[in-house]
Amino acid sequence: MPLTNHEDCVLVVIDVQAGFGGDADTLARAHWLTTLARALHVPIIVTEEEPERHGPTRTGFVEPGTPVFRKPTFGLAGTPEILSAVTDTSRTTAVLVGFETDVCVYQSAVGLLDAGLRVLVVEDAVGSPGEMHARGLTRLRDAGVTLTHCKALAYEWVRTVEGASVLPRPAPFAL
Amino acid sequence: MPLTNHEDCVLVVIDVQAGFGGDADTLARAHWLTTLARALHVPIIVTEEEPERHGPTRTGFVEPGTPVFRKPTFGLAGTPEILSAVTDTSRTTAVLVGFETDVCVYQSAVGLLDAGLRVLVVEDAVGSPGEMHARGLTRLRDAGVTLTHCKALAYEWVRTVEGASVLPRPAPFAL
Amino acid sequence: MPLTNHEDCVLVVIDVQAGFGGDADTLARAHWLTTLARALHVPIIVTEEEPERHGPTRTGFVEPGTPVFRKPTFGLAGTPEILSAVTDTSRTTAVLVGFETDVCVYQSAVGLLDAGLRVLVVEDAVGSPGEMHARGLTRLRDAGVTLTHCKALAYEWVRTVEGASVLPRPAPFAL
Amino acid sequence: MPLTNHEDCVLVVIDVQAGFGGDADTLARAHWLTTLARALHVPIIVTEEEPERHGPTRTGFVEPGTPVFRKPTFGLAGTPEILSAVTDTSRTTAVLVGFETDVCVYQSAVGLLDAGLRVLVVEDAVGSPGEMHARGLTRLRDAGVTLTHCKALAYEWVRTVEGASVLPRPAPFAL
Repeated sequence: MPLTNHEDCVLVVIDVQAGFGGDADTLARAHWLTTLARALHVPIIVTEEEPERHGPTRTGFVEPGTPVFRKPTFGLAGTPEILSAVTDTSRTTAVLVGFETDVCVYQSAVGLLDAGLRVLVVEDAVGSPGEMHARGLTRLRDAGVTLTHCKALAYEWVRTVEGASVLPRPAPFAL
Repeated sequence: MPLTNHEDCVLVVIDVQAGFGGDADTLARAHWLTTLARALHVPIIVTEEEPERHGPTRTGFVEPGTPVFRKPTFGLAGTPEILSAVTDTSRTTAVLVGFETDVCVYQSAVGLLDAGLRVLVVEDAVGSPGEMHARGLTRLRDAGVTLTHCKALAYEWVRTVEGASVLPRPAPFAL
Repeated sequence: MPLTNHEDCVLVVIDVQAGFGGDADTLARAHWLTTLARALHVPIIVTEEEPERHGPTRTGFVEPGTPVFRKPTFGLAGTPEILSAVTDTSRTTAVLVGFETDVCVYQSAVGLLDAGLRVLVVEDAVGSPGEMHARGLTRLRDAGVTLTHCKALAYEWVRTVEGASVLPRPAPFAL
Repeated sequence: MPLTNHEDCVLVVIDVQAGFGGDADTLARAHWLTTLARALHVPIIVTEEEPERHGPTRTGFVEPGTPVFRKPTFGLAGTPEILSAVTDTSRTTAVLVGFETDVCVYQSAVGLLDAGLRVLVVEDAVGSPGEMHARGLTRLRDAGVTLTHCKALAYEWVRTVEGASVLPRPAPFAL
C-alpha cells in the first residue's frame, strides 16, 4: 500500500447534518480536511439524507460549485447518480468523512470498494453515537477499507516540509 | 466482502436459555434482531443445550413453526440434524446470536465456515461471562468469521430510508 | 481453521519457574490445562532456563515420565534436542503455556511455525511483566500463531456435553 | 515470518530532536537500542528535519562516523541520498525508532517497504503526541510493517542466554 497522492483523491462528505449530531472536534476536523482538499484541488462531493428532516449540510462544507446529492439509500452506491458523480471524477481513491460510521459511511465505503475504488475513511472525521463508532471502524477495516486520520492524511498529501505551508492554520490538533 | 442481503440469511439462535445468563441488553438486542428477521422472512433455527438443566429457550425467540433442536455437541455442526436444518434453508449466510461467545457460538461458527457458509456473529447479541466474551470475539475474527452488530446489520438488511420503516420500534439502541 | 482435536496436540510447558514470576491466576490456569492434557493423553514436554538461577519447574507440572529439558536458547527450536522431542510426538499442533510471552514463548512459537507445526498460545496461561504480555500476544498473532484461552481450548478438546465430564473441577474460571 | 537476525538489520534513527518532544521513557528506550545496535555492529543512519528549527539530534545517538542526513521530505525515501544510504548497507531489514509515529516514521516505513525492505518499527521507541501515536501504530501494521518492542527485539538479536551478556545494563525496563 503506497502513500496516498492528493491527485488521486476525491473527498466525499457524507450526511454532515445537524440531525446526525457529531461532536465539535469531529466536525472541526472534517471541516479542516475539507478546507485542505479545496486548497489542493481535490474534488468534493456532498451527500444528504432527508434534509427536510435532518437539516441541510452544516456551514462550511458546501461552496459555490460543490455538488450536493440527496441520498435515499444508506450506501451512496445504491443511488446511481451519486456513484456516477464519484467515478466521473476519474479519481481512484475515495476519502470519506461524515456520519454515521457504522451505517451510511460503512455502506458507502463497501459500495465504493465494490466499484473498484481504493477507500480511505478518516477515523477522526467520522462519527456514530456511543460504541457504534468504534464498532463501525473495526468493521470498516475488516471489509478492506484503509483507516487514516486527518493529520496523517494531510502530511501524506503535502509530502514535504516546504509543501506543508498549505496546511490551514490553526488546525484542530497539533500540526 | 459485499453488503449483506437479508434474502441470503438464516438466523441461528444458540442456547438462549436461563442457564447461560446473558445481560438484559444483550438479550434485548438478540430478541429485537429475531423480531426483525421474522418481519423480513429470514428463516430462524433455535438450538438448546440440556434444556432439563439449563431451561427452555427464553420467551419471544420461538413462535409456532420455529424449529427447535437439542444440541448435545457444543458446535451445532457436530449434530447432523442441526447442520442439515441450516443448509436445507439454502441460505448462504448464517447469522448467529446467543451463548456462549467463546464455546458454543465459536464452535458453531467454525463448523458452519467448514460447511461452506459465510458466517456473521452479531457481537452485541452474543455473550459469555467476564473476559471470555471479548476473547471469543477476537478468536471468531481470527477464524474468518465476520463480526457485525444489531444496528449495522439491520440497516444493511433494509438498505434504504424507505425500507427502514420495518425496523421494530422502540429498539434497544438509538435507530 | 478447523476446530482443534486433542489427538493432534502436544503441550509445551515453557519455563514455569519461580524466577519468571507469573500471577496466581495464570499459574492456576496453566496447571489446570496441564492436568486436562494428562487426562486426555496429550503428550507434555517441559523446558527450563538456567534452573540453578531461576529455580526448578513449579510443583504440579512434572510427573514421573514427563520429559524436562534445559533450554539455553530463548526459542526452543534453537536447541535441537527439544525441537526433536516435540516433532517426535508426531503431533501437528503445539500448544504453548508458560513464560515469558514476548521472549521465550514468542521465539519458541515462531520456531515451531518454521518447523511446520500449527501453534496455539494459550493467552491466559502465559505471562510477561507489565505491558510486555499484551505486546507479546499482539506479535504472536501477527506472526501467524493462533491465540486461544484455557476455557475455549478445553471445550474444543472435549467437544460434547458428555465429554465435558473429564474437565478437572473446580476450575480457576466458570466452566 | 522468521526471527530477526541482527546481521540483517540497519537501524534508522528518525528525527530524534528536541522539537519533536518524546517522553523520557521512549527516549531512553530508543537510546538503549541504539547502544545495543552499536555493540552488535548493526549499522546506524540518522535523519534530521530542519535542525535549525527543531534542534540537532539528541545526545547519545550520534557518534564519530555515524552518518547524519537532513530530511526535507517527511518520508526518508523521498530524499534519494537517504534511501541510498539505507540500501547501500545491503541490510534487508530496516529497524525504525524516533518521531513522529504517524508522519515521518509512517511515511519512511512505507517508502522502505516499497523499496523492498522488511521494516520493523519499535513501538516503545517511537512517539507522536496524544492519540496520534496509537493511530500511527495501527496504520503501520495495516500497511505491512512489523511492530516489535525494545525488549523483544533485543532478545531476538542475541538469541541465547549466553549472548544476552551483551545487553546494556541497566536497561529502561526489566531484562
